Amino acid sequence: MDGKSSSNTAGKPLRCRAAIARKAGEPLVIEEVIVAPPNPREVRIKITCTSLCHSDITLWKLKDPPAIFPRILGHEAVGVVESVGEGVHEVVEGDTVIPTFVSDCGECRDCLSEKSNLCTKFPFSISPWMRDETSRFTDINGETLYHFVYVSSFSEYTVVDIAHVTKIDPAIPANRACLLSCGVSTGVGAAWRTAKVEAGATVVIFGLGAIGLAVAEGARLCGAKRIIGIDVNQDKCEIGKKFGVTDFVNSRNIGDKTVSEIIIEMTDGGADYCFECVGLTSLVHEAYASTRKGWGKTVVVGLDDPSSMLTLSTFELLYSGKSLMGSFFGGLKPKTDINILGKRYMDKELQLDEFVTHMRWSLRR
Amino acid sequence: MDGKSSSNTAGKPLRCRAAIARKAGEPLVIEEVIVAPPNPREVRIKITCTSLCHSDITLWKLKDPPAIFPRILGHEAVGVVESVGEGVHEVVEGDTVIPTFVSDCGECRDCLSEKSNLCTKFPFSISPWMRDETSRFTDINGETLYHFVYVSSFSEYTVVDIAHVTKIDPAIPANRACLLSCGVSTGVGAAWRTAKVEAGATVVIFGLGAIGLAVAEGARLCGAKRIIGIDVNQDKCEIGKKFGVTDFVNSRNIGDKTVSEIIIEMTDGGADYCFECVGLTSLVHEAYASTRKGWGKTVVVGLDDPSSMLTLSTFELLYSGKSLMGSFFGGLKPKTDINILGKRYMDKELQLDEFVTHMRWSLRR
Repeated sequence: MDGKSSSNTAGKPLRCRAAIARKAGEPLVIEEVIVAPPNPREVRIKITCTSLCHSDITLWKLKDPPAIFPRILGHEAVGVVESVGEGVHEVVEGDTVIPTFVSDCGECRDCLSEKSNLCTKFPFSISPWMRDETSRFTDINGETLYHFVYVSSFSEYTVVDIAHVTKIDPAIPANRACLLSCGVSTGVGAAWRTAKVEAGATVVIFGLGAIGLAVAEGARLCGAKRIIGIDVNQDKCEIGKKFGVTDFVNSRNIGDKTVSEIIIEMTDGGADYCFECVGLTSLVHEAYASTRKGWGKTVVVGLDDPSSMLTLSTFELLYSGKSLMGSFFGGLKPKTDINILGKRYMDKELQLDEFVTHMRWSLRR
Repeated sequence: MDGKSSSNTAGKPLRCRAAIARKAGEPLVIEEVIVAPPNPREVRIKITCTSLCHSDITLWKLKDPPAIFPRILGHEAVGVVESVGEGVHEVVEGDTVIPTFVSDCGECRDCLSEKSNLCTKFPFSISPWMRDETSRFTDINGETLYHFVYVSSFSEYTVVDIAHVTKIDPAIPANRACLLSCGVSTGVGAAWRTAKVEAGATVVIFGLGAIGLAVAEGARLCGAKRIIGIDVNQDKCEIGKKFGVTDFVNSRNIGDKTVSEIIIEMTDGGADYCFECVGLTSLVHEAYASTRKGWGKTVVVGLDDPSSMLTLSTFELLYSGKSLMGSFFGGLKPKTDINILGKRYMDKELQLDEFVTHMRWSLRR
């Protein structure tokens, strides 16, 4: 990262490097780009660390809309405010901040409600623009580069609407803090805010990727007694233990039985909470079948193709007393909940270190 | 009702009249029947009032299993204990009781949990028997008559397992109390216990039959600010007002729009709670579409054909923050919640009188 100091750059276009997705599925290209100064309500951020989320990969591979090229991907990051646009008082130059794809305007009915994290003023979209439908990025030939979910963190500098910016404790190491920008927050929040897992509960997690492990971590923090992880990768058995997974089922090794049959046997009737963290609607069916009658909750965390449909008998739903819900960004309100998680990390309650397995230190050539 | 006094009849078979369903869809026949004395854990009840639920009609019309003939239908009733079997200490002769198709054993994991009303020890079924798989009814020719959902209230006397019996305040008029045995409890409970409607909420009810009106009554008691009723019968507009319905939509008079489009317009984005009380899966789709993003809850109360399937995009579920659940007997635990409702009736909070539109006083020839 080699941006100039903010005192020199504020109000001016800024030249830095970014990893550009020029074509679907082709390697990102590190190029010089021009990052315009922030408009009113916007913040220009020097990215200090960014991680890679599977959604970046999905939108990098995808040829059709909402994919668009050339684009600066990346949305799981942390940085330092380089300069702010007019009317931004919430953060100042030098503040450590987390940009989030979820907005938090603080004013709309959703942001004012305790029940929602789906800001109405700035709804989520896999947008190629800032909120005013323009871009702050151009390449050195003057070509427009598209944004990604209002973050675009695969750049040394990016511009983000203040509704998408959360100030955080600068003492949290950057390569930990960035995880609170998407993956870990989404998983922990799904257990904590969406499902409201209670102490003593039995939880089943379908898929122990980063999100699934974060659900385990969230369930562990909520005091779940039993956390059953399911994956096709046997290595996840050991990895899961770090995050509180008490039982592991390799779904490749269950013979003729279905996963739900196994879970119902293991739990004497079904789990209190099931989380689908793979993004396969067929697994949502298994998750639903694995929850206990009377109170079982199935939470959809994994993102499947929009055309993939769940089929459910309303008759069964009525007689089972089960419920079904989705969890977007773990039901978290970025501006309040990220700092709660940050504090729990600093208090050595929430594990973040264990999520980091690979690091690259710089974009330098 | 002309059963002999309990002191003479306890421990002996008892002869009385019952309305027997001898063939699917054919008029019930009032005949003399023999009601055996209660086995251990059972209670013989003199029915003082029974009402007719649509499920009685469904099982009367149905030719295939779980329909079975000859059968004594009826399950929405109130009565007085005539005699008790061995080991029954919870009620004594002369107690006023409500039999319920939902059991409450007080011992199993569900009955001990605050989250469930689906007793595991005595699970619900459209059973033709008592819990020991035998009948207490025979006709005068000695032919077995089948039970219905452990109640069979279309008889002057019936025998019910103590897990299905709730003692109530005898001061509640019988033709009001019987409504707490199924319909009104189911609707009120769906708003109160299943959805947990809060003060100020906006509620939409699909179908203003007895159950839908009871949902309105429950929502009114929970302090809902706006209760929108939807029906194809314009008369329900006036009737609904008695139960707190503030807005009425005749779904036959909405032109090219869908009900959900109308509701979204009326509520500026969707309702907090939608209840499907008709029993049509297609309406569950409309109900789901009518709930607000962020927190909308759809509650299935109406019973559709078991083969009727709801198709739902998990993608949409994830991004919408909505949830979906079923409500069986309104999520009520019979032995505690029926008495709460009975007290609210006696305190002039819960309306029951307004539900009674037709009465027949006796089975006398």
